Amino acid sequence: MNILLLPQNAIKNDQAIITDIVQCQHVSHILKSNVGDSIKVGQLGTNIGTALISQLTDKKIVLTNFKLTQLPPNKLNLTVILALPRPKVLRRLIMDMTAMGVKHIILINSYKTQKSYWQSPMLNRFDEFVLEGLQQGVDTIPPKIELKKRFKPFVEDELPLLMSQFNDSGDDVAAILTHPYAKNSWYDFFSKAIKQDISLPNIVVIGAEGGWTDYEVDLLTKHGCMPVALGQRILRTEAFVNNMVGFWEMG
Amino acid sequence: MNILLLPQNAIKNDQAIITDIVQCQHVSHILKSNVGDSIKVGQLGTNIGTALISQLTDKKIVLTNFKLTQLPPNKLNLTVILALPRPKVLRRLIMDMTAMGVKHIILINSYKTQKSYWQSPMLNRFDEFVLEGLQQGVDTIPPKIELKKRFKPFVEDELPLLMSQFNDSGDDVAAILTHPYAKNSWYDFFSKAIKQDISLPNIVVIGAEGGWTDYEVDLLTKHGCMPVALGQRILRTEAFVNNMVGFWEMG
Repeated sequence: MNILLLPQNAIKNDQAIITDIVQCQHVSHILKSNVGDSIKVGQLGTNIGTALISQLTDKKIVLTNFKLTQLPPNKLNLTVILALPRPKVLRRLIMDMTAMGVKHIILINSYKTQKSYWQSPMLNRFDEFVLEGLQQGVDTIPPKIELKKRFKPFVEDELPLLMSQFNDSGDDVAAILTHPYAKNSWYDFFSKAIKQDISLPNIVVIGAEGGWTDYEVDLLTKHGCMPVALGQRILRTEAFVNNMVGFWEMG
Repeated sequence: MNILLLPQNAIKNDQAIITDIVQCQHVSHILKSNVGDSIKVGQLGTNIGTALISQLTDKKIVLTNFKLTQLPPNKLNLTVILALPRPKVLRRLIMDMTAMGVKHIILINSYKTQKSYWQSPMLNRFDEFVLEGLQQGVDTIPPKIELKKRFKPFVEDELPLLMSQFNDSGDDVAAILTHPYAKNSWYDFFSKAIKQDISLPNIVVIGAEGGWTDYEVDLLTKHGCMPVALGQRILRTEAFVNNMVGFWEMG
């Protein structure tokens, strides 16, 4: 937690009362703050800055003297479309993508996605994971997160609309599909983009463990995604996503 | 587990017996393999290829018909020097760095590293984490892993030797130090390296949560590390390392 994030409208008459138990414990036991200390805070959806601790217990913090003058960091101009992974890794994935500043996250179905994943209680806890990610990444603006349980209608009907928002000239690559058996190398593509000062595509489509079926690759390619491979090694979904999103931080 | 890795000398007369319980369970229950199936295997330190399953139970697998003709993927020409992180994240960190192909990992002490971390039983389990990483990344060559419990002697005496192995011309940057308050931007540095086809430094020094003290930054800088910053956002050590190592995969 690198910033204490307050809900919208939590500050009234330059005062806010925090009763979130994780936040209270963090300030008391990890930061070891005291009454009178200044603390880094932000308000969901708005600015970041500092406040003074005027009361502090394990269950309640009162903050005053807010100075929220700094804008949150820019979001990455990136939509990550990810085959819904194992529930166990969802928390860290959502948290890390949020902390890195991914603007839009779409979790879709794929052949290798087990049906039970869509029933996971983790899918109801995104607000919590996003809050963790924002407090990690020192940001106040949550990413947009969507669940798309039907692969074909999403790719045929919604993906083209999404791509058309970005693809002005019509001849740029609007979306990258990561696929181990693709002919094109991501590294060649990326290197060329840097050398020619071309911006990276705004959409990246990433498979879950086990990757994509031929049918899925064909459908995504037919709808404008460019398949690229990232070398022989296979990484955990979580490591792969962190790896891949890093390239967009080049700006 | 994307490849089943056998210990050195495990194959005798074109036969190997596997009794590792994790491997046996994986082949039986995750891969759902049967007797007669071909399976992707490798031998620690040598080649990768295939073998046939000639016996299979929950506790024992017998493999025959080895065809180990493929070289393991190239290692990244990269040494990661990392302030020893919380034991809880060590497993995934070692596993991911191994899977990504980092050649050499050095865990060092830092002011923000709690003393108790050096007593963790996790420090005795690296072989296990490396095996997981190799089996994830489809590799057979373990990284070299070293523990350096004394910061100053390491930086003053050992780091210069390490750097001299790489730095032929004497005027290249041999080591990058990631530090949030550095003046130079990693992205500018990286982008320039790509544009001018200059290879990346072979050493990257990464702090634990809380980063480096001024004294540590000064000593590392004095001994030839170039501090670079990676933007306003703060990532979990694990996410940060995956993010950073990704740039070396450009080759």
